[in-house]
Amino acid sequence: MKDTTEKYRCENEASVSRRDLLIGGGVLAAGMLLTKGSGLLGTAKAETLSKTWPWPYVKLDPTETAELAYKEWYRVFCGAAVISSVFSQLAEKVGEPYASFPVDGFYFMAGGVSDWGTLCGSCNGAVTVANLIIGPKIHGHKVSFTMSSNLLDYYSNTKMPAFVPKNPKIDPAKIPQTQSDSPLCHISVNKWMTAAGVPLPSPERKDRCARMAASMAYRVVENLNEWKDGKYDVDDNHWFAPGEVGTNAQQNCTDCHGNNIPEPPMPKA
Amino acid sequence: MKDTTEKYRCENEASVSRRDLLIGGGVLAAGMLLTKGSGLLGTAKAETLSKTWPWPYVKLDPTETAELAYKEWYRVFCGAAVISSVFSQLAEKVGEPYASFPVDGFYFMAGGVSDWGTLCGSCNGAVTVANLIIGPKIHGHKVSFTMSSNLLDYYSNTKMPAFVPKNPKIDPAKIPQTQSDSPLCHISVNKWMTAAGVPLPSPERKDRCARMAASMAYRVVENLNEWKDGKYDVDDNHWFAPGEVGTNAQQNCTDCHGNNIPEPPMPKA
Repeated sequence: MKDTTEKYRCENEASVSRRDLLIGGGVLAAGMLLTKGSGLLGTAKAETLSKTWPWPYVKLDPTETAELAYKEWYRVFCGAAVISSVFSQLAEKVGEPYASFPVDGFYFMAGGVSDWGTLCGSCNGAVTVANLIIGPKIHGHKVSFTMSSNLLDYYSNTKMPAFVPKNPKIDPAKIPQTQSDSPLCHISVNKWMTAAGVPLPSPERKDRCARMAASMAYRVVENLNEWKDGKYDVDDNHWFAPGEVGTNAQQNCTDCHGNNIPEPPMPKA
Repeated sequence: MKDTTEKYRCENEASVSRRDLLIGGGVLAAGMLLTKGSGLLGTAKAETLSKTWPWPYVKLDPTETAELAYKEWYRVFCGAAVISSVFSQLAEKVGEPYASFPVDGFYFMAGGVSDWGTLCGSCNGAVTVANLIIGPKIHGHKVSFTMSSNLLDYYSNTKMPAFVPKNPKIDPAKIPQTQSDSPLCHISVNKWMTAAGVPLPSPERKDRCARMAASMAYRVVENLNEWKDGKYDVDDNHWFAPGEVGTNAQQNCTDCHGNNIPEPPMPKA
């Protein structure tokens, strides 16, 4: 495992160095690359910055990130709050391509997309962060695939919300922790609402979801810091559904199927 | 309804005009804003381009877009293929902020995120496109919320894949159309695999998913063209779950709950 994660770490460092070289150690203005005298470095170079992976990453403090996500939830809701908590810090510390990233555009992840209750926005936001920083599997960055899977696994199998903010808007005694067994907003929020005995528009449910965003922001930064240190195991995917059950799937088959779990058409042995 | 959609259309045009003014009618190099003589317009202005909504949009051809998505599926898979099909054309026709958008980073949407089978990547990609172009509801662009909801509704309630490419890799007779009743990858792909009698790694299933991306790319461009023409009704949301069932949810309650559908804690009347 060490070899692979080391490879990612080195690429990451190379990426920072290239960037530092381009801007001569100064501060990179948002999306603007200049050479002394002649002006532009050209369209291709500027585009390259946001499309070359990994993006430059410096280790962040998980607690500080979670506090930012908690606060941001009350402005942009779950998915965009997670992205904002990480990218706003990296925009400060690194610059581009974080500074110009359209964070608020990802508001749509809230409520599992327009209140359809599909993928929880805190999960969608966390995997967006991990993938944009590390880079896509199809460019050789397989660790983003593993980390995304494990972020969903963590969300599903942890008593949540795990993070308690320093100055919560709602008394922590009113925010129970529940395990969703699923990364879907519908299942997660309804299990919690049933345990707490409060409806969707209640201040308690809102604060619970703000803490979900904070918990996933904490987790993704914890994971990215391990990756930056070359300690994230690319092969330690906790759930690879096609290998387990022959199709794309969650782990909670009986939640919907009961004991009558259908088998998908399987490849010939 | 007309007033509201007109409002969006006008904002959209205003945005294009502002941009044209900035670059003096010339081609905007990726992320680079220059004023004659002095050089930079400053960090704030460059960031503003990607964070001011709506993004400049020109009407696209839905069929051409779908063909691009079909082709791109075989490179970046569903979610990123939908984004690529729209943004690559707008990068050509408009420039920024499309040219620098990290499309391939959204590979992670494939298989409902790392093969967990949650939100279908073609849906995730289509709502990403709609929201980044129109802008978030929290900035006053409520039509993106409606369109996202209706994209999921279309996906769930249509015999899919709806689009047949001009030069398909697989004989159309081998690609049946099924209705998922859900925007989840797991439900959608398994209903189809059962109907087609082929497993996940089969060329037929892959081509079906490439056509799903094409179908959603077609639909989102069709919707965006209506919006651009001031003809997309912001209040015509086909499914607003909290209003219908008191929580974030899909429409297919009985698929998982059978006839024993639990009621979430409801707000006091």
